[in-house]
Amino acid sequence: MTETHLHGPVLILGTGLLGASVGLGLSRLGVDVLLSDPSPTAQAIAQDIGAGRILGGGEDDAAALQPQLVVVAAPPDVAAAVVADALRTYPEATVVDIASVKASILAALRQAADAGEIAPGDLSRYVGTHPMAGREKSGPAAARGELFTAMPWVVCAHADASPAAVRTAADLGADLGATVVRMDAAEHDAAVALVSHFPQIASSLLASRLMNAPAHALSLAGNGLRDTTRIAASDPRLWIQILSHNAPEVVKILHGLREDLNRLIATLEDPGADGALLDLAKLMEEGNAGQARIPGKHGSPPRAFAVVTVIVDDRPGQIARLLADVGEAGVNLEDLRMDHSSGHQVGMVELSVLPGRSEELTQYLSDRQWKVIQ
Amino acid sequence: MTETHLHGPVLILGTGLLGASVGLGLSRLGVDVLLSDPSPTAQAIAQDIGAGRILGGGEDDAAALQPQLVVVAAPPDVAAAVVADALRTYPEATVVDIASVKASILAALRQAADAGEIAPGDLSRYVGTHPMAGREKSGPAAARGELFTAMPWVVCAHADASPAAVRTAADLGADLGATVVRMDAAEHDAAVALVSHFPQIASSLLASRLMNAPAHALSLAGNGLRDTTRIAASDPRLWIQILSHNAPEVVKILHGLREDLNRLIATLEDPGADGALLDLAKLMEEGNAGQARIPGKHGSPPRAFAVVTVIVDDRPGQIARLLADVGEAGVNLEDLRMDHSSGHQVGMVELSVLPGRSEELTQYLSDRQWKVIQ
Repeated sequence: MTETHLHGPVLILGTGLLGASVGLGLSRLGVDVLLSDPSPTAQAIAQDIGAGRILGGGEDDAAALQPQLVVVAAPPDVAAAVVADALRTYPEATVVDIASVKASILAALRQAADAGEIAPGDLSRYVGTHPMAGREKSGPAAARGELFTAMPWVVCAHADASPAAVRTAADLGADLGATVVRMDAAEHDAAVALVSHFPQIASSLLASRLMNAPAHALSLAGNGLRDTTRIAASDPRLWIQILSHNAPEVVKILHGLREDLNRLIATLEDPGADGALLDLAKLMEEGNAGQARIPGKHGSPPRAFAVVTVIVDDRPGQIARLLADVGEAGVNLEDLRMDHSSGHQVGMVELSVLPGRSEELTQYLSDRQWKVIQ
Repeated sequence: MTETHLHGPVLILGTGLLGASVGLGLSRLGVDVLLSDPSPTAQAIAQDIGAGRILGGGEDDAAALQPQLVVVAAPPDVAAAVVADALRTYPEATVVDIASVKASILAALRQAADAGEIAPGDLSRYVGTHPMAGREKSGPAAARGELFTAMPWVVCAHADASPAAVRTAADLGADLGATVVRMDAAEHDAAVALVSHFPQIASSLLASRLMNAPAHALSLAGNGLRDTTRIAASDPRLWIQILSHNAPEVVKILHGLREDLNRLIATLEDPGADGALLDLAKLMEEGNAGQARIPGKHGSPPRAFAVVTVIVDDRPGQIARLLADVGEAGVNLEDLRMDHSSGHQVGMVELSVLPGRSEELTQYLSDRQWKVIQ
């Protein structure tokens, strides 16, 4: 059993995908986890998959529970109320929430303190956190204890938070294998508006233009369209809450987008005008510059990998055979993409490797009769 | 040697990435290919890599050449002039261009016919085509004969084109292993505006907002941001030409985007207003619906694959070992993604398989000690 920072017990309020995943991850580490959810079904499933045991569900005296930590895994629009309730009910516990917006929840808790709904000192035990992880499925049945492995876990300390509570919040992320990142609630909300909420909006706006597209147009779709629209398949219910709770930060970015879009439309309405091509060049170059700033794998500085492209038949085992040869070549794979194309039973596999290793890999694979496009 | 439809000789005007790739692909099939480029260096490199032999470069009498087909692989802004010149110089040849916009080139050629710069009948020998293929590199040194394999090759017949010329244009795509798709120039330009030019613009507009982002915000970037901005790294020089030549079609789509964006900004400026959440839900659901219409691999109807996620250490050979086990399980891999996360030396590999096969694969891999998140 791995050594943990948390000693428990840990109470999880809300046993959807994320809450149940937290419970599973902690339970496997030997931490005593209690579960509670407004839905009896959700909490029963969470217990069945091993995420912990239902609060008050048998031998325990729920009222006597003194959790070290309460994890509020409720949707953004009820998170603040559940946190306030937990602060009142468990006067010794650190209480964290894991919702994807932070400033609106902290503001609601400050209001609750001002209104006397929670004691003035209670706020010192609250810390907002945000694990940057998710799945395309939802609900406790989709929960996985490894969901947070190697993902950022943002811990948002605030002026009234006690150092002990902040440490406990960080311990939760660390115990679950995540990478703890510290920033305040405002910084967090501005950051996720830019790197998460804005791409979601852009992808949804882009994909929605395809609704009435003729089928022959869609038959020409390539990886560019597929990549840019993949997240447009996300769950509307969750995103409505996220976007409405972080609206001021998102709107700031959308104002910038609107300015750029207006300029671009004016340019393309008269592409023969003086300076039009220069305007287009500027848009494209700004896109180049912004894209180049996104960090690479493992938080390393952005780095261009060398891409070795291999043509494979679409038969079971072909990709495996190729990857086995790559492994034997002793070259580490930094990334892999399969190229989807229409109407043919062959495809391309793009292998990304460190720039210095591509010649060697190309030679090795060519020697083994692979059709390589370096 | 594979049997070809074309008998040649084929003259390629323009030996950049695409022209040289056409030459390489045809030369390997045994077709006699001649090369010409305004840049002596580019044409020499193309000859050196085996794309064909330089026109007039030795034993041949360039003036006596009677090509079956002339392939104009010049940039969009000079393509029409080069086509017109080829129609005059080679009065028996079919002439195709492979630029990524089609209506503006056809219109320029009609003007040339009206102005008497080409003979009235010459237009019957011209057919516009567009191979939907490319690489992140450019120039003849990056050329690959397999570049067009399994990719769509759009053939745009027009009212004055002879059936024989259209057939020759289609033969070119077929000989290079591409999938021939027929539509007229206007349909083509509207289609690529939507599935290629618009995603490029959306990605560039999105990425350009990252230019001045704080580094701590970018450290939270996940696959959503990476996917939506990948094509923002594209070459500005080429895209300036493409966008300016297809401006009317692109502008139509951008007007629709602007309407949606204005509505969204108004909604997010007052997210507490009546109907605001419904508006957000509508945007997200339209995005869902549009994304679901994009055809899957091999042109099949869009289909949700089951995703089996496996956690792997970031060591050479791990992915290969995993894929070897997938191959042994006898389950065909429809897609594979590696999940990039920051700061950790482990990663996730997402294996997409037919929905009915995921349980079996999960069992097989779990039995072999892989950490599987189904």
